[in-house]
Amino acid sequence: MKLQSHWICVVLLTAIFPVNAAAQTLAEKLGYPKDAKLLIVHADDVAETHAVNAATFQALESGAVNSASIMVPCPWFPEAADYAKSHPGVDFGLHLTLTSERVYYRWGPVAVREKVPSLVDGNGYFHHDWDHHPRIDPRDVENELRAQIERALAMGVRPSHFDSHQYRLIENGKEIFQVFLRLGHEYGVPIFVTRDWFAEHPYLESSLGPQDLVLDHTVTISPDVTAEKWADFYRDALKNLQPGVTEFVIHVGLDDEELRAFSRERATWGAAWRQRDFGFFMSSEFRRLLEEQRVKLITWRELAKAAASR
Amino acid sequence: MKLQSHWICVVLLTAIFPVNAAAQTLAEKLGYPKDAKLLIVHADDVAETHAVNAATFQALESGAVNSASIMVPCPWFPEAADYAKSHPGVDFGLHLTLTSERVYYRWGPVAVREKVPSLVDGNGYFHHDWDHHPRIDPRDVENELRAQIERALAMGVRPSHFDSHQYRLIENGKEIFQVFLRLGHEYGVPIFVTRDWFAEHPYLESSLGPQDLVLDHTVTISPDVTAEKWADFYRDALKNLQPGVTEFVIHVGLDDEELRAFSRERATWGAAWRQRDFGFFMSSEFRRLLEEQRVKLITWRELAKAAASR
Repeated sequence: MKLQSHWICVVLLTAIFPVNAAAQTLAEKLGYPKDAKLLIVHADDVAETHAVNAATFQALESGAVNSASIMVPCPWFPEAADYAKSHPGVDFGLHLTLTSERVYYRWGPVAVREKVPSLVDGNGYFHHDWDHHPRIDPRDVENELRAQIERALAMGVRPSHFDSHQYRLIENGKEIFQVFLRLGHEYGVPIFVTRDWFAEHPYLESSLGPQDLVLDHTVTISPDVTAEKWADFYRDALKNLQPGVTEFVIHVGLDDEELRAFSRERATWGAAWRQRDFGFFMSSEFRRLLEEQRVKLITWRELAKAAASR
Repeated sequence: MKLQSHWICVVLLTAIFPVNAAAQTLAEKLGYPKDAKLLIVHADDVAETHAVNAATFQALESGAVNSASIMVPCPWFPEAADYAKSHPGVDFGLHLTLTSERVYYRWGPVAVREKVPSLVDGNGYFHHDWDHHPRIDPRDVENELRAQIERALAMGVRPSHFDSHQYRLIENGKEIFQVFLRLGHEYGVPIFVTRDWFAEHPYLESSLGPQDLVLDHTVTISPDVTAEKWADFYRDALKNLQPGVTEFVIHVGLDDEELRAFSRERATWGAAWRQRDFGFFMSSEFRRLLEEQRVKLITWRELAKAAASR
């Protein structure tokens, strides 16, 4: 099953953003002034655990987080798909996933294993990481991404965008990135890519065409920020937000027994981390900062709609 | 990988329990008086969720629950396997699983899907139930059970017994039961079967040979017991315990957010149910009743060892 309606968007985007309009910023193309500060507040990892789902749904309902993406291979995917289906206005993408990075709680591919041999370990799970598995076959990547997208569509999710768990599809060479991009085109769904990454990975820019949506910036907190400095990091990020379209990549969750067990082998992106993100983005301070800094929240679905309506 | 050492047990059991000893009770064969009341207190569904793992490990450490079985296809299997590996004295079996009975949290086969087509739904998960899927292919059952056993062995679990999630391998005809029995023989691991089931499913008795361990009785609480009568049910069961080897099939868990979300579509075997089982079997009353009724706790591993040592 394909998202036929999205093909129209792709055609429209191509018509609206012709090559000779390349000098226009994304904000201008969308009808905003060049200096507008447009922000997607994006929660990753939906479906990874129930504690992440519960926090994300609450944050989406409060409006403080306005976009999120779902991991199809994870056990709580049916809960996420059910929520997405019953909340069709919510900006859900697919967080395309090729690793199972934890120790005590794991998942494997959606595709049959024979079609993705380079992606799985001896026990049938995705690899923890790719450091010791450099021979990832782009054909396996394509088979697995296609299976994830098809399962999501079959279970009623209509993704507004595709992005990549742990940036695997961004950081691992031209061939793998081009699989990601090609599937975005085929399904008529924009993929998350930002100019911030062009310098480090030149194949991103050279692979993209004028029809592709490219965000200007992305901000995500890193393990070197201490718990005490957490809110400071986001305050500074909001105060220094650049004009254009920025995506905040955040990781919300509830610091409960499930999430503590899930993440107990290391604190990075763990239960306390996710509770801190949840706390900041649910705070009145965050809303106040958005107003103070004249930041306009925007979603992936709005990006596509604005383009289609011109 | 096979459990070669268990072959020895099978050979010994065959030698110890010859056909002409059939009149002996299991208790007598194990060296206990005929009227001894031997009890396995067995927690099902390990690995299904973290809340079940946490409760089971606690109950096993307290000694009030003395046996349990693990669901290999479930996402928390690595946590259970790690625990089993680091607690080699604990009596863990495999809770062989062919269904994914919940709505918002699901799992699929360990075998590649092409080898188990009759077991999976259109989205690649195990069926919720088999009521509308009567054409379960015994070859698929064998492929899947073998894959689960092999993954468990590869990840360091040395099962003391095999049993069957939702009794699928018991209640669905001779062919499927014989797959279960054959794999028990092949791996040298006893399967959970009791005389209590013979009347309803005559193919059980006719399939079993004199070398097979057969428990005398089993007790499990059912949905018609109200929360108020929970402890009464177990008190009565202990006071009325028959001589011979009985297995209490219980379902422990912690009534937390994860387990409530897992079981929110129905209360049966849900979060509150599992918390009630946990509460009763962790209580001092349960220990007191065991003493009062002169019940001796016994494990699957002890059953096999006692047989082997004779």
